[in-house]
Formats: sequence, C-alpha cells, structure tokens
Amino acid sequence: MVGIAIARKKKCIVVLSGGPDSVTVAYWAKKRGYEVYALTFRYGQIADKEVKHATMISQSLGIPIKVIDLSSLKDVFVGVTSLCDRNIKMTSDFSQPIIVPFRNAIFLSAAVAYAISVGAIEILYGAQGSDEAFYPDCRTKFYKAFEKAARLGTDTNISIKAPLSKLTKAEVIKLGAKLGVPFHLTWSCYLDMDKHCGKCESCINRRKAFREAAIPDPTEYAE
Amino acid sequence: MVGIAIARKKKCIVVLSGGPDSVTVAYWAKKRGYEVYALTFRYGQIADKEVKHATMISQSLGIPIKVIDLSSLKDVFVGVTSLCDRNIKMTSDFSQPIIVPFRNAIFLSAAVAYAISVGAIEILYGAQGSDEAFYPDCRTKFYKAFEKAARLGTDTNISIKAPLSKLTKAEVIKLGAKLGVPFHLTWSCYLDMDKHCGKCESCINRRKAFREAAIPDPTEYAE
Repeated sequence: MVGIAIARKKKCIVVLSGGPDSVTVAYWAKKRGYEVYALTFRYGQIADKEVKHATMISQSLGIPIKVIDLSSLKDVFVGVTSLCDRNIKMTSDFSQPIIVPFRNAIFLSAAVAYAISVGAIEILYGAQGSDEAFYPDCRTKFYKAFEKAARLGTDTNISIKAPLSKLTKAEVIKLGAKLGVPFHLTWSCYLDMDKHCGKCESCINRRKAFREAAIPDPTEYAE
Repeated sequence: MVGIAIARKKKCIVVLSGGPDSVTVAYWAKKRGYEVYALTFRYGQIADKEVKHATMISQSLGIPIKVIDLSSLKDVFVGVTSLCDRNIKMTSDFSQPIIVPFRNAIFLSAAVAYAISVGAIEILYGAQGSDEAFYPDCRTKFYKAFEKAARLGTDTNISIKAPLSKLTKAEVIKLGAKLGVPFHLTWSCYLDMDKHCGKCESCINRRKAFREAAIPDPTEYAE
C-alpha cells in the first residue's frame, strides 16, 4: 500500500490585542507552521483602536481575524478600571497596576469556544514575563489553572500557552524584530489619540522595552 | 465603649438564565440572607426570551439584574450548536447532548469581573446533579478548577459555588417549590415560541422533573 502523507497544519487561536506582545506571538506561531486564527475583542476599552491595529496586523500576516464585540461588558468595568472609564484617573507611576479584572479569562474563555468551533487544540496569548508581577491573569500559574478548567469544562485536551512567558518585554521586542513583526502597525497606548501618548503606563513600558532591546522604536509618540 | 454592630449582608452574583435551576439558586441565596446581584446574558441563543424571563424573576425577587450582551459570540457558536444555529438539527433524544462549548466558563468569567466590581466574594450558578453526566461545564470538578483559576487570576479569594450540584433536577423543583419560586415565570425551552414547545431536550427535562417531584407543573406546553 502506498500511503500519501498529507501534512496538516496544527490550528491555533491567538488572542490578538494589536500590541507588540500578542503580535509577536502571532508571528511566532505562523513561523512555527501553525494555521493561525486571530481573535480580538471590543470590551469597552478607551483604546478601541486596538481593534483596527489587530486587524491591520492580521492582514499583514495573512491570517483570518474574528472581532468579538463584548463592549456590553463596559457596564461591568466602568467604575472599576481607568482603561474603560474616563472618570478614573489613569496612573502612570506603577503605584497601582491598571487592571481590568479577569479580562484575560473572559478572552481565553471565548477563545476556547472559538477553538472548538474551528477545531484548534491550542490557544496562545501574549502574557510575558515583565507582566507577571503586575497582572495576575498574565501569570503562568493562572493560565495553567485555567487550562485545567478548560480541559474539564470541554472534555478535550485543549492547551493554553503563553510562549513569551519566560521573556522580558525587551526580549519580546528582540524576538519580534527577528520575526519581522511590523512594530509600526502595533498599538500599545491606553488612550485613543492619533499617536501614542508616550506617557501612560503602557507607552512607558513600550518605550523602555525598545530602548532596552536596542531596537529602533518606530512609534510616533505625542510627547 | 459601646459598639454598634451593623450587620452587612454578604454579596453574591447569581448567573441567572431564567430557568428553574438558576432561579432556585437565586431564591435560595436571598433566603440565606445574601445580597443577590443577578447577571444574565444574551449570547445569540434562539431562546432569547430567557432574558425577559430572568428579568421578570429578578423583579419578582426584588434583586437587581444586569443584562450583558455577548451576542457577538453568535459568530463563534453558529455552526457549532443548535441552540444558536437554526440550521443545525436539534436533537431531543439525548443521543448527543446539546452543548454550547465552554459557555458557562464565559458566563462565570464575566461574573468574576462583575463580582469584583460590586465587591461580591461568591458566585453562584445553577449547575445541578442531573446535568453532570451531559454537560462538562456543569461538573463539580470543572467549577472547582475554574474557582482556582479565578482566585489566581484576580489575586482574591473569590468562590464559585453550585449549591444544587448534589441534587437531581426533581429535587431542585421540590426545593424551589419550598422557597416559593414562581415557576410559571421561568423559561426552559430552547425555542422562542409563545409557549414551551414541550418537545426539546430542555422541555423534556423540565416536564420529567416536575412529574418526578410530584409538584404541579404550571408550564403551558405547545404539545
């Protein structure tokens, strides 16, 4: 019997915010031969233009993207986080990490449902090492626990992975540069101005990472 | 010093679908002295009238309800489940349990975020014993694993509980009757007709439970 081997690409879902971390994950996955399905979310964030940037990135990478509108969650997040509520002062001194409670779990839950719908067995998200200290839903122990819940809750062997979890953000930028990530298309800023504000926590982290990585930062900052 | 003790009610979130199980949980929690916050969801379900019924129940119980519109998830669930896709034949012979993949995890994730926003430390949902065999996201081992992920992902001691997990659906109906649940206001049917269809899996379960509990079933079935 002559067998014809048909190589089937492994499918994965990448939770794509449009920022450098998740975009690097998408490029990394494509490079490793995955068939990548991007998933991005509206959740009432002030920086709604993330969605536009995630879409541009997907086009640039040649992968499909699904935009899920969860902006009704704004009702839950208003009064809780400055990322969704302009009446809450946005700190930028890292005195109080800016958290959208359990946001990543909401995204990962939807990603699990999407994975089952397209027959993917892995979900990748952009949590990286520099975030571990500040954001509980970026920690390895969180996503490992979530993976267990996902397996039990779906009766599958689905995997949740954060391939950048051992890297600092500067190392992510270096990796992204090697993979050809079009950083000028990525968006980090918590605000919705034409340019990155340059002053919010996320812009500060972005700037610092490019500087530490010694990679030219193509970002236009307002100041 | 004379202290004045002010008894503060413990707050909880009840994920309320408007069906007899989750409604019984809400009545149970109110009876036990919780300050109950109901949370209900649109997720592209054909039986969208669940939301109307959940709202009527909340009014009847005198608790606030928040309706979160996740109907954009329909994009994920279409092609996957007959509860959201009229082109998929709805089985009613229990040959193939009708599953919306990881739906309860999506709801519980949003409930965790809501709990943090209102300062609740418990989330209750209506998983009951008769569902255990069919729906992985109704199983005790699932919600215990999810609770662990929720604690790690929020750096809190939040609890996820399914107070009915040891009861059969018939026992839930008995308990609900004792608690004064207005069963005529609850909705189980997977369809969106004026009356319960009487023939879908959910109607069959409802009918059977009332019969087994020997509680008069106030439901109007189409047939």
